[in-house]
Amino acid sequence: MLKNDTWRADILVEALPYIKKFWNKIVIIKYGGSAMEDKQLEQQILKDIILLRYIGMKPIIVHGGGPEISQEMLKQNKTPQFINGLRVTDRDTMDITEMVLTGKINTRLVAEINLCILEDQGNGIKGIGLSGEDAQLLVVKKYAHIDLGYVGEIIKINTEILTLLIEKDYIPVIATIGVDASGDRFNINADTVAGELAKVLKAEKLIFLSDVDGILRELGNVETLISSINVEEAKKLLESGQVQKGMIPKVESALGALEGGVKKVHFLNGKQVHSILLEIFTDKGIGTEFVSVDN
Amino acid sequence: MLKNDTWRADILVEALPYIKKFWNKIVIIKYGGSAMEDKQLEQQILKDIILLRYIGMKPIIVHGGGPEISQEMLKQNKTPQFINGLRVTDRDTMDITEMVLTGKINTRLVAEINLCILEDQGNGIKGIGLSGEDAQLLVVKKYAHIDLGYVGEIIKINTEILTLLIEKDYIPVIATIGVDASGDRFNINADTVAGELAKVLKAEKLIFLSDVDGILRELGNVETLISSINVEEAKKLLESGQVQKGMIPKVESALGALEGGVKKVHFLNGKQVHSILLEIFTDKGIGTEFVSVDN
Amino acid sequence: MLKNDTWRADILVEALPYIKKFWNKIVIIKYGGSAMEDKQLEQQILKDIILLRYIGMKPIIVHGGGPEISQEMLKQNKTPQFINGLRVTDRDTMDITEMVLTGKINTRLVAEINLCILEDQGNGIKGIGLSGEDAQLLVVKKYAHIDLGYVGEIIKINTEILTLLIEKDYIPVIATIGVDASGDRFNINADTVAGELAKVLKAEKLIFLSDVDGILRELGNVETLISSINVEEAKKLLESGQVQKGMIPKVESALGALEGGVKKVHFLNGKQVHSILLEIFTDKGIGTEFVSVDN
Amino acid sequence: MLKNDTWRADILVEALPYIKKFWNKIVIIKYGGSAMEDKQLEQQILKDIILLRYIGMKPIIVHGGGPEISQEMLKQNKTPQFINGLRVTDRDTMDITEMVLTGKINTRLVAEINLCILEDQGNGIKGIGLSGEDAQLLVVKKYAHIDLGYVGEIIKINTEILTLLIEKDYIPVIATIGVDASGDRFNINADTVAGELAKVLKAEKLIFLSDVDGILRELGNVETLISSINVEEAKKLLESGQVQKGMIPKVESALGALEGGVKKVHFLNGKQVHSILLEIFTDKGIGTEFVSVDN
Amino acid sequence: MLKNDTWRADILVEALPYIKKFWNKIVIIKYGGSAMEDKQLEQQILKDIILLRYIGMKPIIVHGGGPEISQEMLKQNKTPQFINGLRVTDRDTMDITEMVLTGKINTRLVAEINLCILEDQGNGIKGIGLSGEDAQLLVVKKYAHIDLGYVGEIIKINTEILTLLIEKDYIPVIATIGVDASGDRFNINADTVAGELAKVLKAEKLIFLSDVDGILRELGNVETLISSINVEEAKKLLESGQVQKGMIPKVESALGALEGGVKKVHFLNGKQVHSILLEIFTDKGIGTEFVSVDN
Amino acid sequence: MLKNDTWRADILVEALPYIKKFWNKIVIIKYGGSAMEDKQLEQQILKDIILLRYIGMKPIIVHGGGPEISQEMLKQNKTPQFINGLRVTDRDTMDITEMVLTGKINTRLVAEINLCILEDQGNGIKGIGLSGEDAQLLVVKKYAHIDLGYVGEIIKINTEILTLLIEKDYIPVIATIGVDASGDRFNINADTVAGELAKVLKAEKLIFLSDVDGILRELGNVETLISSINVEEAKKLLESGQVQKGMIPKVESALGALEGGVKKVHFLNGKQVHSILLEIFTDKGIGTEFVSVDN
Repeated sequence: MLKNDTWRADILVEALPYIKKFWNKIVIIKYGGSAMEDKQLEQQILKDIILLRYIGMKPIIVHGGGPEISQEMLKQNKTPQFINGLRVTDRDTMDITEMVLTGKINTRLVAEINLCILEDQGNGIKGIGLSGEDAQLLVVKKYAHIDLGYVGEIIKINTEILTLLIEKDYIPVIATIGVDASGDRFNINADTVAGELAKVLKAEKLIFLSDVDGILRELGNVETLISSINVEEAKKLLESGQVQKGMIPKVESALGALEGGVKKVHFLNGKQVHSILLEIFTDKGIGTEFVSVDN
Repeated sequence: MLKNDTWRADILVEALPYIKKFWNKIVIIKYGGSAMEDKQLEQQILKDIILLRYIGMKPIIVHGGGPEISQEMLKQNKTPQFINGLRVTDRDTMDITEMVLTGKINTRLVAEINLCILEDQGNGIKGIGLSGEDAQLLVVKKYAHIDLGYVGEIIKINTEILTLLIEKDYIPVIATIGVDASGDRFNINADTVAGELAKVLKAEKLIFLSDVDGILRELGNVETLISSINVEEAKKLLESGQVQKGMIPKVESALGALEGGVKKVHFLNGKQVHSILLEIFTDKGIGTEFVSVDN
Repeated sequence: MLKNDTWRADILVEALPYIKKFWNKIVIIKYGGSAMEDKQLEQQILKDIILLRYIGMKPIIVHGGGPEISQEMLKQNKTPQFINGLRVTDRDTMDITEMVLTGKINTRLVAEINLCILEDQGNGIKGIGLSGEDAQLLVVKKYAHIDLGYVGEIIKINTEILTLLIEKDYIPVIATIGVDASGDRFNINADTVAGELAKVLKAEKLIFLSDVDGILRELGNVETLISSINVEEAKKLLESGQVQKGMIPKVESALGALEGGVKKVHFLNGKQVHSILLEIFTDKGIGTEFVSVDN
Repeated sequence: MLKNDTWRADILVEALPYIKKFWNKIVIIKYGGSAMEDKQLEQQILKDIILLRYIGMKPIIVHGGGPEISQEMLKQNKTPQFINGLRVTDRDTMDITEMVLTGKINTRLVAEINLCILEDQGNGIKGIGLSGEDAQLLVVKKYAHIDLGYVGEIIKINTEILTLLIEKDYIPVIATIGVDASGDRFNINADTVAGELAKVLKAEKLIFLSDVDGILRELGNVETLISSINVEEAKKLLESGQVQKGMIPKVESALGALEGGVKKVHFLNGKQVHSILLEIFTDKGIGTEFVSVDN
Repeated sequence: MLKNDTWRADILVEALPYIKKFWNKIVIIKYGGSAMEDKQLEQQILKDIILLRYIGMKPIIVHGGGPEISQEMLKQNKTPQFINGLRVTDRDTMDITEMVLTGKINTRLVAEINLCILEDQGNGIKGIGLSGEDAQLLVVKKYAHIDLGYVGEIIKINTEILTLLIEKDYIPVIATIGVDASGDRFNINADTVAGELAKVLKAEKLIFLSDVDGILRELGNVETLISSINVEEAKKLLESGQVQKGMIPKVESALGALEGGVKKVHFLNGKQVHSILLEIFTDKGIGTEFVSVDN
Repeated sequence: MLKNDTWRADILVEALPYIKKFWNKIVIIKYGGSAMEDKQLEQQILKDIILLRYIGMKPIIVHGGGPEISQEMLKQNKTPQFINGLRVTDRDTMDITEMVLTGKINTRLVAEINLCILEDQGNGIKGIGLSGEDAQLLVVKKYAHIDLGYVGEIIKINTEILTLLIEKDYIPVIATIGVDASGDRFNINADTVAGELAKVLKAEKLIFLSDVDGILRELGNVETLISSINVEEAKKLLESGQVQKGMIPKVESALGALEGGVKKVHFLNGKQVHSILLEIFTDKGIGTEFVSVDN
């Protein structure tokens, strides 16, 4: 018997209080396109999430896929265009978006989850992919503020399919395509979807996994990473203009989720190995944590 | 009150014996790419299937999508290649196949089903898309007979997700992508998938919906359409070489399904309006019907 | 393939919006004695109701049987007597009433429903007869306003047996005999029973199937058939004295049901072929429809 | 505290071994027409049966009603006729039979059961009447041996309605009317029905409650009452011709039930006060007990 | 047939109204140490309780064991000490208390219950012992008023284990050991536990089975036994100082239970044969009954 | 973020294949008296077992308690006596045995399990103590080979209470007291109980946790510890006389369990920190592993 092994066992046992705390609780994980660029990293992140499920948590993955969409567009000689950080989505772009999100990234993530299960003679837990038109999961209308083409905003989430699947030991993986009242599919901001889902499912945690370390107090100064921030402070920060562009919808989703009853929201850097586990299994956590004032 | 309306009611009542006969029974419908070319027809076919579900049957849709795959390949300057009617599927072709089947056709079919539900204040029944990697539905290995690249043959079907969804009033729509033991996705013949599913789910009926009227006794002579044929006769016909090329896997799947306990297999022309309903709600049926010898 | 058959299929598909609308909803059908006189018509009406059940609705039949009761009395040399349209019910009359309603009409209706099921290899749905003493379904006290003998008014409905049977795919057929606190059986007005049941079961629809076409605005003038009337108007009509005698309890039940939350109440002529289907499967409906003011 | 009361308590406790022995077991009680003649006795018998249910047994009552049928026939100037103890049943006789069994005796028994429940603020257990056409409980064909008109023999018993009701704390009361494949109702021998039900439901006990004390070894000699007899002996007795006429179908049913797995069959005199309880709650029992040889 | 037997049956039937009244209702029985002294009596009391369960009630036994604890202490040369009737409980005393209550009395009671079941081929109902640390049933903190060592007062009752066991036909037998937030076990007053349990489980009845006949209006004068007393009167009696010492916590628990919604509380003398049955199966009852004012 | 933390996460993820492998599987852990001597060690062992439960396994603890029994006997001036390693158990010894096992060790283990849950805001999982008389879990007869007094051998295990509790997220802790047909309690060898339970529950693993490192090939030579041994070899070893005395019943139980379908049996040294985890979460394992020949 090696000392080394005993130490491993110690670490497992030290995880017990955290395992208990989150046992049977729903955790929404927004897995961003930028944290998907490295295949090995992606597999590691999925393994971390599978681990959460096996030790009793109920994770739901909401994924984006911006870089891969742009890449596919370029392959087809189309130039990605953005207004205020939102993709201008004409008919062709929408087709590509849906094919990439639902038919490429979502299937890859689900296959990887299930592969991981397969290789270890796993029994019982399996991943399943969903897109907004499945069981009318994400009902949207056209985004009203500016004309971006097929960009939608959520008007209804039908959670019963998620509840059913979670109870039966599935890990849902959601492509953030919405469907409108005439059956047309729309691109939706994945951060918003994650926030709304966390709210309607009364999730314990909402985790944004992107490629930055968290929220900075001073734009561009990585020394000013905020460990913990409450709703009040976060609102002020938003108003101050110090929140980075792409972070704005994330922070807004975070605030909405907290106000909707979610216990905590985290911003983690997916590129940091095991960031989800580090957040869940250590007291100090990593990245930036959002808490409601009265937490 | 118009005579016309009374007549409609008569027709509904005349459907009762057929409704009863198939109440609570599973019906696998293979919906082929060639029968998808007309959007209006597609909507009509889906409406027919939704009707089946509402009147108590348990339909499962298995779809192909060959023409749309080829079209997308051409758009990306790739030339579709076939050996013995099977698509040669290199890495890029497989990506396109998966994106088109799962991310375009499957989502469109599901959205159309749910749209149809939405517009009439439907309650309770909803479509949901599945692909072979979802819950490890379709596990495959590389096709062994000739090297076609990413073409797979089924080694295991995990039906529990289907059983769960059917019980809870969902209509599953299946894209015939399989997943192998290393997580790679493969193209699989949709006719074979439909046949295997019918067998493992002990379906009442298996329906092949393509763009021909049925099986011809003499190749090319539409006058020789076979109404009903039993397993013995079908085997002889196969041996005789009179079965059209693309029909061979369908006929083989049909035979396998019948031998596996499925009650009847039908070949219908999806281009004929309401062909599924005509088959189910009339005594003489349409197209070609396969029955086991002792039926 | 005949044109004719395609047309039939069209009609089935046109029924889909109505099927969806009423899927899983409870419909109480009061089937009156006068609409039972023709055996063939009776079978047709029952077939229509079975059809409703097979396509997902939850029908409950409440039947009367006045004419057959009178006929049996005459056979036994007793003269039927009525005060204000209510049958004077002495001990012998009550015995005859119960035997005819529960032991003749109810059993015949149930046998016909199940026969219909049998002959088509139906699976799963079956009729079952209930009378007020079964599971204390209809608890009554002696009618207090005038002494009519064994005539009761409802004081309690125990719906749990109905809920159990409906959930398990049975069609309940109810003979409107009530039981009082000392175990005596009483005759109860079937229209009232239907209205009360619709109320306590929160039915979607209550249908009175008698032998007139609906409510007339002017007594005796069939040209003045009312298509649709709201609660306010119906109350005025009642006060105006224009409602025909036998119709008074029906109209009062209708008003009570609407005020108790039932969505719509219909008066249909059972002698009109398929009147129930015509009401449910056409937009304009037939007969007279009662709606609450705010419908 | 009175001695008397303590003694009562003693008796309750002495019943415990018998209560345990039959807890959760099905007991079929054939309650014959001749034991129904005294209303007070009838109420007492029903109370005994209700008691069985409350202390954990699952009783099902199968009733006859010969005398009341004959009485009603005479009232309508029809003369009852019998061949070999079986009632000749023309159309009118059948109508009267059904009305009396289902619409008079069955309803009276059910009302009395529920009355008894009502008066003591009972909660949970309720009687419910069933006739053979309900849920196709008793499917028959015309009796083939001699033409007796509407006399049927059982070809199928659909027990699922009984199983459902028993599980949900109902006491089923069955009128032995059967229904044939064309929906016609037939009179069936109630002893046979009781025996067949005991067999298909794997009852613990089958009790024939009539107006004689049991089986006599010598026809007419009440001194020769048999306490206990096994299958072998009973067969010999039948062959010897010593079994009284009306007893023959009962004895045959008893033998059939024992051979079909029922543990014990009893012949009790319903006119003896508490005969069912005396049989169940004493070791020596009363009446005649049939046991299988290897019991 | 003996008259005697018929009389027994009469008595069973006379119990029916009481059986119905308490069918499916929870009854908490505090079985005190002083009523355990006679082994034969103990067995009789348990048999009475088993009888209650078999005839449909849901009894839960809460037992004390003071005399046996003291006896064990003396055996180990420790002198029992009491302050205000509460046992001074040092570490060793606590160990002895727990061993005697959980490891001797509780196991004996459970074994006797199951023995009784065994010997009569009982099926389905079984006793099961629980102590406060099981499933955190009884969470306590150290008694605050005076320092008595390991004496606790209840701060939380986790009833889900009781609900689970009762539903599945078990009779729970509870040793009144509590557990505090650091895992230490404490002695708790069994009367208080019984009262609190009755309250949280919304019991129909709470029975205190001790060795006195009930509450006396004048301390020491057995002629002044109170048959029935309401909350108001009981409070006055408590204030008057006429309640005997050991009775004070019982009377306080009784009042708490009644105010918490329990229907009736009874004080019975366990030494009187069948006292529980006499209370439940006679109208006048025995001992002292506490009712809420508005009962 | 510290390296240290990332490393911890790595270790959690490395545990995943083992977690999956044993997810939802039953593991019987015999926790011997000798491994209970150190309170801190005991708490650590229980924490390890709780961890197993939280990560999806279904552990059942079977405990002994020999040393504490002997200690209590000495305290009461009784000298422990053994024949062939089995305790001579007179009436007093049996009382002490039961009090110590059920009323001291079992309660302590359960309290410690639940304490551990409490302190970390655990939700859902709780320990519950059982002894052989609970729900007739362990039915025994007197040990027949030599007269040892109250020493029993198992004749029946009633597992339904275990199945119920396991399904509902409880960890059962079993004191190995048996009950015979007359309600007397008996001491039973805990190793045998563990083996029999593993067999009837079709456990995945049976773990003997004692104070030695495993089975030695040469008696007394710790260098000859056997890592893995199959049934054949183990039988030979037993015959060779090289198995240490106290180990004989363990090895026999192990063989019985393997022959009864248990996958693997392990002998671990409870004094080695985290021995259970080391066995489960490493490939090479520790201690001695018994496998069936064809494993």
